[in-house]
Amino acid sequence: MSFEDNIRKVIPYVPGEQPVGKVIKLNTNENPYPPSPKVIQALKEYDVDELRKYPDIYGGELRDELAEVYKVDKDEVFVGVGSDDVLSVAFLTFFNGTKPILFPDITYSFYDVWADLYRIPYKTISLNDDFRIDKEDYITDNGGIVIPNPNAPTGALKSVEDLEYIISNNPDSVVIIDEAYIDFGGRSVLPLIRKYDNLLVVQTFSKSRCMAGVRIGMAFGDKKLIKYMNDVKFSINSYTMNRLTVAAGAAMLKDEEYFKETCKKVIDTRERVKKELKELGFDFPDSSSNFIFATHKTLAAKDIFEAAKKKDIYVRWWNKPRIDNYLRISIGTDEEMDSFIDFLRGYINGDI
Amino acid sequence: MSFEDNIRKVIPYVPGEQPVGKVIKLNTNENPYPPSPKVIQALKEYDVDELRKYPDIYGGELRDELAEVYKVDKDEVFVGVGSDDVLSVAFLTFFNGTKPILFPDITYSFYDVWADLYRIPYKTISLNDDFRIDKEDYITDNGGIVIPNPNAPTGALKSVEDLEYIISNNPDSVVIIDEAYIDFGGRSVLPLIRKYDNLLVVQTFSKSRCMAGVRIGMAFGDKKLIKYMNDVKFSINSYTMNRLTVAAGAAMLKDEEYFKETCKKVIDTRERVKKELKELGFDFPDSSSNFIFATHKTLAAKDIFEAAKKKDIYVRWWNKPRIDNYLRISIGTDEEMDSFIDFLRGYINGDI
Repeated sequence: MSFEDNIRKVIPYVPGEQPVGKVIKLNTNENPYPPSPKVIQALKEYDVDELRKYPDIYGGELRDELAEVYKVDKDEVFVGVGSDDVLSVAFLTFFNGTKPILFPDITYSFYDVWADLYRIPYKTISLNDDFRIDKEDYITDNGGIVIPNPNAPTGALKSVEDLEYIISNNPDSVVIIDEAYIDFGGRSVLPLIRKYDNLLVVQTFSKSRCMAGVRIGMAFGDKKLIKYMNDVKFSINSYTMNRLTVAAGAAMLKDEEYFKETCKKVIDTRERVKKELKELGFDFPDSSSNFIFATHKTLAAKDIFEAAKKKDIYVRWWNKPRIDNYLRISIGTDEEMDSFIDFLRGYINGDI
Repeated sequence: MSFEDNIRKVIPYVPGEQPVGKVIKLNTNENPYPPSPKVIQALKEYDVDELRKYPDIYGGELRDELAEVYKVDKDEVFVGVGSDDVLSVAFLTFFNGTKPILFPDITYSFYDVWADLYRIPYKTISLNDDFRIDKEDYITDNGGIVIPNPNAPTGALKSVEDLEYIISNNPDSVVIIDEAYIDFGGRSVLPLIRKYDNLLVVQTFSKSRCMAGVRIGMAFGDKKLIKYMNDVKFSINSYTMNRLTVAAGAAMLKDEEYFKETCKKVIDTRERVKKELKELGFDFPDSSSNFIFATHKTLAAKDIFEAAKKKDIYVRWWNKPRIDNYLRISIGTDEEMDSFIDFLRGYINGDI
């Protein structure tokens, strides 16, 4: 017997590499554009004396702005340290039964990590051969459901109608729709939270709101669900949303025009990159996100991944069943994508 | 059967009130002094464009500075979103056995909340009649030990020798020493981490480092313990330490002179307030922290608490066995403490 026996040993989530120095970084789905100038201003004007005091436990001004912008009540909003924090609290709060929770086999690779950590039974549902979710697969006995929309890393979008079919047919389960990438062309299920009290919608500032480095995620749902999440959150750490984050996040929400412009720029770049990738011999599920999940007709994904890295271009590749011949390519600036396409052209022609 | 049945229902930790407006706030042990001017400068000069990218998963520059200032290796340091986050991860990581963990009956009121949340068996050990910890009580079979030093809310300090006695006699348990208040006159057990691989020392920026609003806590321990904590942390949320927090925290650590001066000011104020409280008929365990846990010879704590609140002076009172006739009074500025003492004088004389 030693204290080692009492230690919770886990296989942790492995995030994408964060190389330092001058590289083209298309591996963690960050936004290539900086936050709104309103964020710069808010930080410049911030009264640093305030930092000596604890922040508001509900996220203060940030929650107020979220309620305003998303047209919901404050008690229908939960804020956390990135959507990972929000999802982790949701798993811990809502999935305490003995029946397995359901999520796709190819999806955000954190879901099974949380399930393992919190000892939640789970069952993965295979995507079909086109890497798409079949709604009928989720009409079965379960202890909860998690569906990312658009899915990651495929980028494929489900319709609100298909998701409503799943939500309405699972009244005894909390259904989490993880909308981390919804702002890049999808339609949110957010308006359904008043119709279904078992629906939790999760979003983030890390992608469409250009603020991965500030760590803000949010959930919207029936106020009873939000209360249960807050109870659990307050039992882990009451004060998660620090004062600088709250100020920066609230400022970002005050510039919806900048937000929409930035999303449009990313979408426009994505659409022309899709054409270029097709011309170069790539196939991919049609993406509604800020990345493209692509496989080449003849070249191995792993080889392209490694060759790109040597040229200081980082994309993401997983050594996992079904997807080990795919690359997940984040959408960068037009210049970054041009460099990547140039690299691919050279690689395909055998010049690299 | 409904989704309600699968919800984890908890009685959450209730933090001290955070009143807004012009009040004298002596209820949550915040530092009355602002962070170092170096923090203001760091935020002013911060390159906001960087916020679009994920932060370092280990806390980057903040961890580097902690290793430097505390003279340990980087892999002996864990950083989290306040010491609550650090302690929560430590509970989840180290306390997975069937034997109860031990902590005092009168102590930081979050310990039993985490134990309940994570379903960790626990046993509380009564403080003696002087509200002090008896080291012999911790030489018994257990699944882990948590001791705050100085203890909260009593403020009483244990010697390093007494704590080493507990640590060395429990080689099969992880022993957490929670040093949230150590900088106000105590001696840290930190140098013992190289001698005992079962020791985890937890500290925070919220008290002595004037930054409760920025949410930084840290743990020091054998690199194996730190690795296990990071594995669990990366299974919850890889990116907890946001870029602004890292920049502000690292800047604060670059001004050790300011830190020492601030601690000295708080200690000096505390010592003279002790004298004044004695003169007014209060008793208290001798405090080595930034608060005093006081009971009056004749007046009820609850009545004083409520009367003070009416005058916009907030202290902390708990309706709990053994301590319901005590007030926890945080040490504010000299002016704030003068106002509080004036209030007490008036209250005792019957003028209020």
